[in-house]
Amino acid sequence: MIASSQASAIPLYRDIADKIEALITNGVLRPGEKAPSLRRVSAQYGVSLTTVIQAFILLEDRGLVEARPKSGFVVRPRLPRMEEPTASKPPRAVTAVTVGGLQSRLFEAVMMPHIVPLGGAVPSAELLPTVKLNRILARVARSAGKRGVAYDMPPGSEALRREIAKHALDAGVTLLPGEIITTCGGTEALMLCLRAVAPRGSIVAVESPTYFGVLHAMEELGLKAVEIPMHPRDGMDLDALEKIVQAKSISACLSVPTFNNPLGSLMPEANKKRLVKILAARDIPLIEDDVFGELYYGAQRPHAAKAFDEKGLVMLCSSFSKSLAPGYRVGWVAPGRFYERVKALKLTSTLATATLPELAIAEFLANGGYERYLRSLRLIYAANVKRMSEAISASFPAGTKITQPQGGFVLWIELPKAVNALELHDRALTHEISIAPGPMFSPTQGFRNFIRISCGQPWSARIQSAIVTLGKLANQMAG
Amino acid sequence: MIASSQASAIPLYRDIADKIEALITNGVLRPGEKAPSLRRVSAQYGVSLTTVIQAFILLEDRGLVEARPKSGFVVRPRLPRMEEPTASKPPRAVTAVTVGGLQSRLFEAVMMPHIVPLGGAVPSAELLPTVKLNRILARVARSAGKRGVAYDMPPGSEALRREIAKHALDAGVTLLPGEIITTCGGTEALMLCLRAVAPRGSIVAVESPTYFGVLHAMEELGLKAVEIPMHPRDGMDLDALEKIVQAKSISACLSVPTFNNPLGSLMPEANKKRLVKILAARDIPLIEDDVFGELYYGAQRPHAAKAFDEKGLVMLCSSFSKSLAPGYRVGWVAPGRFYERVKALKLTSTLATATLPELAIAEFLANGGYERYLRSLRLIYAANVKRMSEAISASFPAGTKITQPQGGFVLWIELPKAVNALELHDRALTHEISIAPGPMFSPTQGFRNFIRISCGQPWSARIQSAIVTLGKLANQMAG
Repeated sequence: MIASSQASAIPLYRDIADKIEALITNGVLRPGEKAPSLRRVSAQYGVSLTTVIQAFILLEDRGLVEARPKSGFVVRPRLPRMEEPTASKPPRAVTAVTVGGLQSRLFEAVMMPHIVPLGGAVPSAELLPTVKLNRILARVARSAGKRGVAYDMPPGSEALRREIAKHALDAGVTLLPGEIITTCGGTEALMLCLRAVAPRGSIVAVESPTYFGVLHAMEELGLKAVEIPMHPRDGMDLDALEKIVQAKSISACLSVPTFNNPLGSLMPEANKKRLVKILAARDIPLIEDDVFGELYYGAQRPHAAKAFDEKGLVMLCSSFSKSLAPGYRVGWVAPGRFYERVKALKLTSTLATATLPELAIAEFLANGGYERYLRSLRLIYAANVKRMSEAISASFPAGTKITQPQGGFVLWIELPKAVNALELHDRALTHEISIAPGPMFSPTQGFRNFIRISCGQPWSARIQSAIVTLGKLANQMAG
Repeated sequence: MIASSQASAIPLYRDIADKIEALITNGVLRPGEKAPSLRRVSAQYGVSLTTVIQAFILLEDRGLVEARPKSGFVVRPRLPRMEEPTASKPPRAVTAVTVGGLQSRLFEAVMMPHIVPLGGAVPSAELLPTVKLNRILARVARSAGKRGVAYDMPPGSEALRREIAKHALDAGVTLLPGEIITTCGGTEALMLCLRAVAPRGSIVAVESPTYFGVLHAMEELGLKAVEIPMHPRDGMDLDALEKIVQAKSISACLSVPTFNNPLGSLMPEANKKRLVKILAARDIPLIEDDVFGELYYGAQRPHAAKAFDEKGLVMLCSSFSKSLAPGYRVGWVAPGRFYERVKALKLTSTLATATLPELAIAEFLANGGYERYLRSLRLIYAANVKRMSEAISASFPAGTKITQPQGGFVLWIELPKAVNALELHDRALTHEISIAPGPMFSPTQGFRNFIRISCGQPWSARIQSAIVTLGKLANQMAG
């Protein structure tokens, strides 16, 4: 119900923009051609001129049209789009995980002042509702009294858990507040899930490539990895997964089915159902990281795999670090049948989540215009990703391949084989540019000629020029 | 230097009160006798009447004198003090750790409304600078801008680390801000230290009794424990420790040398030196939990064992949960030579500490009157512990023994052998009173006839009556 009321809330101008975008994408309107006049569009769709103007501003943001003095809007010339990377072919063997050192290196770069931060998948504070959120926290701090300084013992703030449960409905997930535990960010949520279900030395199935944070956690927990091939648009290769679970005893499967980090891939709904089924047949827990799930570019929030969980085996993890405030450190987990275990582990990890940040986020979700804000954030990310793709297509060596994400704000780039990503990372740093080198995203430090580029910053001439520099460096290394 | 300027800052009236207390303690002034008149004290010590009045108010707070209409102050009758528990005699064997379930039970009780909370060692928000701290957080949140929502990556806020380093000087510890890592509370600090130095299956030497939180963490990490006998006033039996490290291969030693939880014991400085030396001889890390260190009743902050660390083997952990705001979840660790390791582990545990709570605490330490506030908090805790001891002495069964802590705010009580502490815990809960049963404080659930009572609440008729009820229950069980 909520999902459909959601859909009808899409503003009219966005609808119009989507229709014109389809005309451009399908070649009805060609690059260099004049777009239909504002008046004509207004008449054609029976909408006001204001709405049409808003639609064209949006199309301009998306990089599809540009205004020309005295001749209205023109369809922008499109650079030949680079190909998508091919599906990954990780080694079949079970391997130890060794990535830790690389993560520290990346974060050190992120912290450096003056760096162009294309490395960490961290949203810019300029895109976040920074002022509003800090103001809400200030208000909550002034009025919370004793409650503000007191422990908020697990499962954490009920107000927040109620809001999380409401929003989970959009992802097709029916959760009660009592099934949710708040955490110190998504990192703690993932760590608790791993500790709950994957004993030391056991094998965890991971996507290839996958988020380095969980690989680092697996390394510290002494877990082994088996990598699942990934399609750059549809995500996990489920036939391969099926073979893996037949051949090996797996303690858990880790997945970011909705906008995988770094691929941006979106597992189709039918695949999500099948994924849950394959694992349920063997009682294997699925640790689902849905931290990018709200950041879809399409018309509707994709369902989480948890929506198809019948046995309580899916441990759904998320946080507000990509959409509201990384520095508030508020995440959550709905660990299904492992609820009691995760709650006990939370006590030994951090005892409780910080009270006031929890309450501030609950208040923002309830009364801060979260949905409205997310709608604009999605447009910004979609436009950023498009612009970044174009800039990369224009500057990077021939043969470079690039993903076409359908949500989130990262791009995964396959460079010519001769380019060593770790070396590119080091050279880029001397130019004050940080990137995430591919080997971080694999338990065995594969993806040696891949990099991840974050589009979480507002577009700027500085970023544009950083991409040009990166392209030069990559061209030099490509030989 | 700072320590001595600190000492000279002790207000004159407190000095006078200490002198009169000594007269009472040594029997020069007997219970029921009139205390010397205000004028006489004023003349004797050459101080103003106002100062003397302040001194007597303090003595009244400490439960040593009481005002009688028209006859000034009278020395309060003292109940026969109960004996201290004897030194602990834990089993010598190395054991697995099993306590987890008990911790959850305790915290569930703590969360119940209407409960008299004598179980958790949690300070009441009424005793904390709640309004001031929340107001500072509000101010920081309004002015922090982008920084407030952004990650504050490990090692965490420099402003906070600078303040921590300044305060560490009082404990005889010279730290640079670059040697400190902030954490999500003291719990995370201890967990990270254990993960950094104690591999799964290895043996950790722990005090007997010891804080159940670390026992629970050890259980989850698959660590084995060997228990060190404890003296109720001086803490660890170092001869026993020496034998243990000779006989067994120990990966780390965990200690709360300053106001052990639950004993309140204070390891003398010479012993702290020897403790560090014994461990250093075999390169065994000491995880020092100093969370109660600021809450001394004496004239001066006791030195931390870290003050005697020459090899970087002492990992000093603390937090602001006992003195400022448990709900802010701000702790820290100075992990010595294990700095890089702990920093990397912090990334996999929670990535970063919540930014704004860190900044608020830094601001409170710098400009909020932290020292002044702590001075009054110490007096309150000392008075609470004294009153609680008296109330217990008056109500509990003959043969009950009770600690005489020199800091912190917990009492450890040895009941007659017939009293089962777990059963007492359950019965007390039906009367809406929570206590911490002894078996939580031992890896093998020993201390079956011991309980810990927290004195972290303002004294009240409700607490008084809860102690009477507990006494009745214990008397019934003592048979």
